[in-house]
Amino acid sequence: MPELTLKQVAEKLGARLDAHSPDAGTAMVRAVAGIETANAGEITFIANPKYGPLAKTTQASAVLVAENFAGLPTQTTAALRTTNPHLAFAKAIELFQQPPRYEPGVHPSAVIDGSAKIGKNCHVGACVVIGKNVVVGDDCVLLPHVVLYDDVRIGNNLLAHSHVTVREKCRIGNNVILQPGVVIGSDGFGFAKTDESKWYKVFQSGIVVIEDNVEIQANSCIDRASIGETRIRAGAKIDNLVQVAHSCDIGENTLLCSQTGLAGSTEVGKNTILAGQVGVVGHLRIGNNVIVTAQSGIPGDVEDGKIVSGSPAFDNKQWLKSVSIFNKLPELAKAVRAATAGGQSSKKD
Amino acid sequence: MPELTLKQVAEKLGARLDAHSPDAGTAMVRAVAGIETANAGEITFIANPKYGPLAKTTQASAVLVAENFAGLPTQTTAALRTTNPHLAFAKAIELFQQPPRYEPGVHPSAVIDGSAKIGKNCHVGACVVIGKNVVVGDDCVLLPHVVLYDDVRIGNNLLAHSHVTVREKCRIGNNVILQPGVVIGSDGFGFAKTDESKWYKVFQSGIVVIEDNVEIQANSCIDRASIGETRIRAGAKIDNLVQVAHSCDIGENTLLCSQTGLAGSTEVGKNTILAGQVGVVGHLRIGNNVIVTAQSGIPGDVEDGKIVSGSPAFDNKQWLKSVSIFNKLPELAKAVRAATAGGQSSKKD
Amino acid sequence: MPELTLKQVAEKLGARLDAHSPDAGTAMVRAVAGIETANAGEITFIANPKYGPLAKTTQASAVLVAENFAGLPTQTTAALRTTNPHLAFAKAIELFQQPPRYEPGVHPSAVIDGSAKIGKNCHVGACVVIGKNVVVGDDCVLLPHVVLYDDVRIGNNLLAHSHVTVREKCRIGNNVILQPGVVIGSDGFGFAKTDESKWYKVFQSGIVVIEDNVEIQANSCIDRASIGETRIRAGAKIDNLVQVAHSCDIGENTLLCSQTGLAGSTEVGKNTILAGQVGVVGHLRIGNNVIVTAQSGIPGDVEDGKIVSGSPAFDNKQWLKSVSIFNKLPELAKAVRAATAGGQSSKKD
Repeated sequence: MPELTLKQVAEKLGARLDAHSPDAGTAMVRAVAGIETANAGEITFIANPKYGPLAKTTQASAVLVAENFAGLPTQTTAALRTTNPHLAFAKAIELFQQPPRYEPGVHPSAVIDGSAKIGKNCHVGACVVIGKNVVVGDDCVLLPHVVLYDDVRIGNNLLAHSHVTVREKCRIGNNVILQPGVVIGSDGFGFAKTDESKWYKVFQSGIVVIEDNVEIQANSCIDRASIGETRIRAGAKIDNLVQVAHSCDIGENTLLCSQTGLAGSTEVGKNTILAGQVGVVGHLRIGNNVIVTAQSGIPGDVEDGKIVSGSPAFDNKQWLKSVSIFNKLPELAKAVRAATAGGQSSKKD
Repeated sequence: MPELTLKQVAEKLGARLDAHSPDAGTAMVRAVAGIETANAGEITFIANPKYGPLAKTTQASAVLVAENFAGLPTQTTAALRTTNPHLAFAKAIELFQQPPRYEPGVHPSAVIDGSAKIGKNCHVGACVVIGKNVVVGDDCVLLPHVVLYDDVRIGNNLLAHSHVTVREKCRIGNNVILQPGVVIGSDGFGFAKTDESKWYKVFQSGIVVIEDNVEIQANSCIDRASIGETRIRAGAKIDNLVQVAHSCDIGENTLLCSQTGLAGSTEVGKNTILAGQVGVVGHLRIGNNVIVTAQSGIPGDVEDGKIVSGSPAFDNKQWLKSVSIFNKLPELAKAVRAATAGGQSSKKD
Repeated sequence: MPELTLKQVAEKLGARLDAHSPDAGTAMVRAVAGIETANAGEITFIANPKYGPLAKTTQASAVLVAENFAGLPTQTTAALRTTNPHLAFAKAIELFQQPPRYEPGVHPSAVIDGSAKIGKNCHVGACVVIGKNVVVGDDCVLLPHVVLYDDVRIGNNLLAHSHVTVREKCRIGNNVILQPGVVIGSDGFGFAKTDESKWYKVFQSGIVVIEDNVEIQANSCIDRASIGETRIRAGAKIDNLVQVAHSCDIGENTLLCSQTGLAGSTEVGKNTILAGQVGVVGHLRIGNNVIVTAQSGIPGDVEDGKIVSGSPAFDNKQWLKSVSIFNKLPELAKAVRAATAGGQSSKKD
C-alpha cells in the first residue's frame, strides 16, 4: 500500500487542510479507517452529524469534514475540509486500495457458443457459459460460473460476479456491476386462472433492459416482462435480495434497498429511495425524489417529493404521530373508558 | 413472427369478434401488447376493471374483454369477447411467440455419475452436475450449472434453469419449472439448545417433495424436513425469494407471492393466496381459499375462505377500518383529551 | 438403517425409560418420527407444551419428554425422560440416519489455481473454482460449483454446498456450514452522492470474517465492509435469505431467522434471536439475550434482555396490549364520538 503525506492527500481530494501545527501536512498517511477505529497515520470522515462528537476522541491524523464543521482541528487531529466529505472519503479509499483487476483472456473451461461475439480486453472466467448470438462489449469481466443465455446483449465494462444469470434476449448497458447470484430476466409471476381454478402459465415473452451505470447486488432478481420490457434506468442501484417484478420501470439514480419487493407494472421515478424491506403493490406510480421508509407498504400512487411510511404507507410526519400514539393505545383506551363513564355520569345529571 | 387475421385470432382463441366494420376480421395481427403501448396490428386485453377506460384510447386493433364489457368496439378497435380474457390473452401471446426450445443432448462439460439414469429427449446443459443414483425422466431440460445431488428423482418434462440446486433424495414430479438459483432441499433451520446455551445442529434427515405442475421462481428456497418431508402440492406456484421452512405442506394451486416466508411445520390449504412479503409463524394451519394480503403476519390458524390482513393479521374488513383510524390517531387522541377535559368539567358541575 | 432396543436407545441418549410394561426396554426401534406421524417401532419427542396432549394419542413406542412430563407413559407408549428432550431428539435422529459423507479427492473438472493450498482429506467437487493464494484447511467439503475468490482463507471442516461464493480475502473459521447459494463478501450498498446527484460507488475495501461453528443457510448474503470487517461470531446461525450489511457484527450464538435484514454498521449481541423478516436500521446496537419478534423493525438501540415487537419496535408486552386495541380501533373511535357528544351535551347543561 502506498504512503502519502497529509498535504498530498488534501491535494488529491481537493480538500483544505486545517490543522493546529504548521507542519501537519508532512505527516504520513497510510490508510483510511472508521472514525472509531482509526489510528495515527490514518484518515477518516464525518458526514453523519451523529458522529460529530467522535472528532474529539478519534486517533486519526485527519478527518474529512464539511467546510463549517466546528469540532476540529484538535492538537492531534487535523480537519480536511470539503463540500462533500462522504464523496471525498470514497475517493480517499481509492488512494490506498483498489478493487481486484482481472487480466484479459478466456479460461479454457469457459463454454462459449461459436456465434457469440466477445469484445476487446474481456476477462472470461472458469466455467462461464455464453449462449448463441450473445454480444459482449469491450473490457467486460465475467467471473466464474456466469451464465449468459442466448441473444443477450451487453455493453462495455460489465463486471459480473460469480453465479450471475442473464436470461435470453436481455440487454445490459455500459459500466454495469452485477454482484454474485443476481438473476436478470427470470420469468415474471404471471398465471391466468382457468375455468377449473388451475393456473395457466402466461409465457413471459418480454425482456429486461439494464441501462448504464446500474449496480445490482447479491441474489437480487429482476423479472422479464410478460410483454415488452422491465427497465432499470441509468444510475439506479439495487441492494441485495431485492425483487423487481415484470414490467416495472425503475427511474434514474433511484435506490432500492435490501429486501425491497415490487409487484408488476409499477413505475418508480428518479432520485427516489425505497429503504429496506419496502413492499410495493403493482400497477402504480411512485414519483421522483420520494423517500419510502423501511418496511413500508405502498398501496397507491405516491407524488413527487413525498416522504411516506407505514404499512399501508401515508405521510411520514403524520405516521410518526400515529405511531407515537399507537405505543400508548392502552392509556388512550383507558382514558376513553374514563371519559365514557364521565360522560355517562354527566348524562345522569 | 407469424401474422394472422383478426378472424383467425378469434377462432384460435375461441373468442367472439365484435366490431363496427364488417371487414374487421381481415385486419392483420402481428403481435400482442400492453393496453397502453399497443398499436394497430396488435391485440391486447382488459381483465382488471381499473383499465376499462383505456379501451377508449388504446391504439390496438382488438382487445380481449369479458362478454359483457361495454366500452368496445370503437371505430378503430374491435372487441374479442370471451369468458376469460386473461386466459385468452395468455394463449394469444403463444400465437406469436414461444419460449426457447432446447435440443436433446448432453453437453460434454456436464458431469454425470455413471449410476444416474437420464430419460429420453433430455437436454443437459454445460457444467450440469448429476450425482449418484439420480433418476431423471423424459423430456427434461437442465440448463447450465444445474446441480442434482445424489439420489434425486425427477419426473418428466422438468425445466430447471441455471444454478438450480436440488439436494440429496428430493423428489420432483412432472411438468415442474424451477427458475434460476432455486434451492430445493436446503437444510431447515433446526438447532437444539445445549446446556451451555450453544446451538446443536439437528440433522435434517427428511426431504422435499415437489408435485406435478409446480413452478418455483428465482432464488427461492424450499427447506428439507428435519424428519419426514416438506411438500409442495400439485399446481402450486411460488414467486421469487420465497422461504418455505422444513416440514411445511403447501396446498394445490396455492400461490406464494414474492418474499413470503413460512416458518416450520405450517400447512397451507389449496387455492390460497399469500401476497408479497407475508410472514407465517410455524406449526399452524392456513385453510383453503384464503387470501392473506401483502406484508401481513400470520400468528395463528386461519379458517377456510377468510381474507386477513395486518401484522399480526385479522379479518381484512375490520383491518381496513382499524387502519383508516390509525391514520387519524392524533385527532382521535385530541378528541379524547377534549372529552376527558369535558368529562372532568362535567364532573365539576 | 440400524435397529436398536428401546433400552439401548435410552442408554445412548442418557434418558430414563419410564414404561408400564417391565419388558418395554426390549421393544425394537427403527426410526424417529414426528409426534403425529410416528408409528410403533418409532420414537418421537415433545419439547413444546402445545404438543403435550398428543402424548395420549401418538402411536410412537416412546416419546422423549422432560423429567416432570405428566402425560406418559400410556399402555402403548413409554416415556424417555431427560432434562433436554429437544437435544436428545437431535441425537436420536443420528442413531438412525447420518448426513452424506464425501470421499476425499479433487474432481478433475475443478479449477484450482497453482498457488492455492488445500489441506488434508478435502473433497473438492465438480466445477469448483479456487483462486490465487487461497488456503483451505483439512477435512473440508466443497460441493459442485463452489467459488472461492483470490486470497480466501478457510479453516478446517468447512461444508460448502453448491453455488456458494466466498469473495476475495474473506476469512472462514472451523466447522462452518454454508448452504447452497450463500454469498460471503459481496459488496456493501455504499454510494456517495455527487454534486450532480448521481451515486459514486464507495469501494468496499473490507472483508467478512466468519468465526467457528457458524452456519449460514440458503441464498443468504453477508456483505463485506467498506473499510475493516463484517464479523459473524462463533456459533451464530443464520437462516435462508438473510441480509447482513457491511460492517455489521453478529454476536456469539445469535440466531438470525429467515429473511431478516440488517443495515450497515449494526452490532447484535450474543444469544440474541431476531425472528423472521425482522428489519434493523444501521449504526445501532442490539444487546445480548434480546428477542425481536417476527416482522419487527428496530429503529434504535435495544438493551440486553429485552423482548421487543412491532414496526417500529418497542416493549413486547406493551405492544401486545396496543395490538389488541388496534384490532378494536373502530369501537374505540365510536366510544370517543359518543363520549365527545356526551361531553358536548354536558357542556350544554
